[in-house]
Amino acid sequence: MTREKVEIVEVGLRDGLQMLPVTIPTAEKLEWLSAEAATGVKRFEVASFVPAKNLPQMADAADVVAAARNMPGLLVAALAPNLRGAINAVAAGAQVVVMPVSASAAHSTSNVRKTPDEMVEELGRVAQMRRDENWNIHIEAGIATAFGCTLQGHVSEDEVVRLAVAAVEAGADEIGLADTVGYATPAQVKRMFGKVRAAVGDKCKSAHFHDTRGTGLANVVAALDAGIRSFDASLGGLGGCPFAPGASGNIATEDLAYMLESMGFDTGIDLSALIAVQPTLRRIIPGQELFGKMAKAGIPLGFSDTRIAAE
Amino acid sequence: MTREKVEIVEVGLRDGLQMLPVTIPTAEKLEWLSAEAATGVKRFEVASFVPAKNLPQMADAADVVAAARNMPGLLVAALAPNLRGAINAVAAGAQVVVMPVSASAAHSTSNVRKTPDEMVEELGRVAQMRRDENWNIHIEAGIATAFGCTLQGHVSEDEVVRLAVAAVEAGADEIGLADTVGYATPAQVKRMFGKVRAAVGDKCKSAHFHDTRGTGLANVVAALDAGIRSFDASLGGLGGCPFAPGASGNIATEDLAYMLESMGFDTGIDLSALIAVQPTLRRIIPGQELFGKMAKAGIPLGFSDTRIAAE
Repeated sequence: MTREKVEIVEVGLRDGLQMLPVTIPTAEKLEWLSAEAATGVKRFEVASFVPAKNLPQMADAADVVAAARNMPGLLVAALAPNLRGAINAVAAGAQVVVMPVSASAAHSTSNVRKTPDEMVEELGRVAQMRRDENWNIHIEAGIATAFGCTLQGHVSEDEVVRLAVAAVEAGADEIGLADTVGYATPAQVKRMFGKVRAAVGDKCKSAHFHDTRGTGLANVVAALDAGIRSFDASLGGLGGCPFAPGASGNIATEDLAYMLESMGFDTGIDLSALIAVQPTLRRIIPGQELFGKMAKAGIPLGFSDTRIAAE
Repeated sequence: MTREKVEIVEVGLRDGLQMLPVTIPTAEKLEWLSAEAATGVKRFEVASFVPAKNLPQMADAADVVAAARNMPGLLVAALAPNLRGAINAVAAGAQVVVMPVSASAAHSTSNVRKTPDEMVEELGRVAQMRRDENWNIHIEAGIATAFGCTLQGHVSEDEVVRLAVAAVEAGADEIGLADTVGYATPAQVKRMFGKVRAAVGDKCKSAHFHDTRGTGLANVVAALDAGIRSFDASLGGLGGCPFAPGASGNIATEDLAYMLESMGFDTGIDLSALIAVQPTLRRIIPGQELFGKMAKAGIPLGFSDTRIAAE
């Protein structure tokens, strides 16, 4: 029986590391990357192309992207907040450029010093340069704070839809909805993806959830119900957001993979092998609190039986 | 607009405390109970009527039940593994007697030294005594290890259905499915509740999930989809199972309440007040690891707006 595929995008090297107080050497980032790639994860968001003075952790973005491209079979994504970042990302070899478009004006200004509409225009410039330069890249608009914002609270659902439509019109190939600050809850997730997919169709295909309030995997279930088949996650739940103090980070890649496999989806990931990567991560970021449960609890006895029964 | 009600059953005083290495004084248990009751939680599973030599933590079960009955408006439940325990629970004033019927023969033998069918017979004896003695109690069969077992792995779904039917025939008023060891995953939960409700109807009305592998709240979403409107939880996610080493306990009451309210359900609970009970719990069980995220992350800015939007 063929199982339906669901893509897991490991974003820990970008979203997980960017908040750390220490800068991780490039070689150690690549050690994590290659160890996790060996477990079957194919798509990685590996870096953010921002000025090194703003984010020293990402000063080696070009090196990390180039090295990732040398690993066979990976789809290498990088975040770029502007055209300059996108140019650098493409020069380094990134195949996917992720541009954050905050639905919260307050967050957008704080995060990228642009209004949401200015970010859509910037995305349009990247798309224009793709045409001019024949770049073979995929442009993803990540609609940040799509489910609420720590700075302004409520985020208008109509505004999320409007920005998604505008981003597609500006040239985005893919729309992801991101719960940047961990406010999303299941009913909201299902409703919001339904609205955006009604407006832009299957181009709205990915979700980025944090587990700040324990609802991360529940939100995944809701998004699956809405047709989403690509999810960002971070090994050990590493991550956070400068605008969400105390936030406990992304959903954990290993917990997500376990849940999806248990639901009969094919992630392409060797779950035992993935869990076994965590000691490598712990060695690279000693003392950093990790989240997620599978690394501690382990795979259930007889898990294969359960999975087969679910198919 | 009237919101649909969902019941949260606080089981921390039973399931949360029974694994602790120290015995909590009765007065402190009651302090927790009254503090949480003041936030709007109505139904509590407060004790287990087992021999004190087996479980010293529960030696004061009768006192705790009697005190809980003196608090206005509560529905007081107690666990009883046999007729003797049920007699003592009813004598103390318990309004709900919960009897564990393990779907795993291995777990049943280890936990209550009876086979699953012997436990159903024992439940039948309690129902018989209810008739004979005109007890005004509600009998709940908690089908333990309904989603898998750490001792035997896979648990037959047909066996879960068979035991649920047998428990109803023996006199159970309510069937709960319990993920005693934290193996349940969403697709399985939805399927399993569907099967049991097809067999025994609305009598199958409650769920008991642990968050051992991060899927606790995702399982709640799946159970809601299957029509379940009553969920066990434990403040701070306290709890565990002697047969599930490393298990991180029940789903956290405060995280569950947050998610349900965000989905437009009416739990009857004042969420801010509930979160504010956690310091009391920490004082009562110093040094014990707590789980759940809401106590740390807090209620989202503008949460009321989100909730109203979800209705």
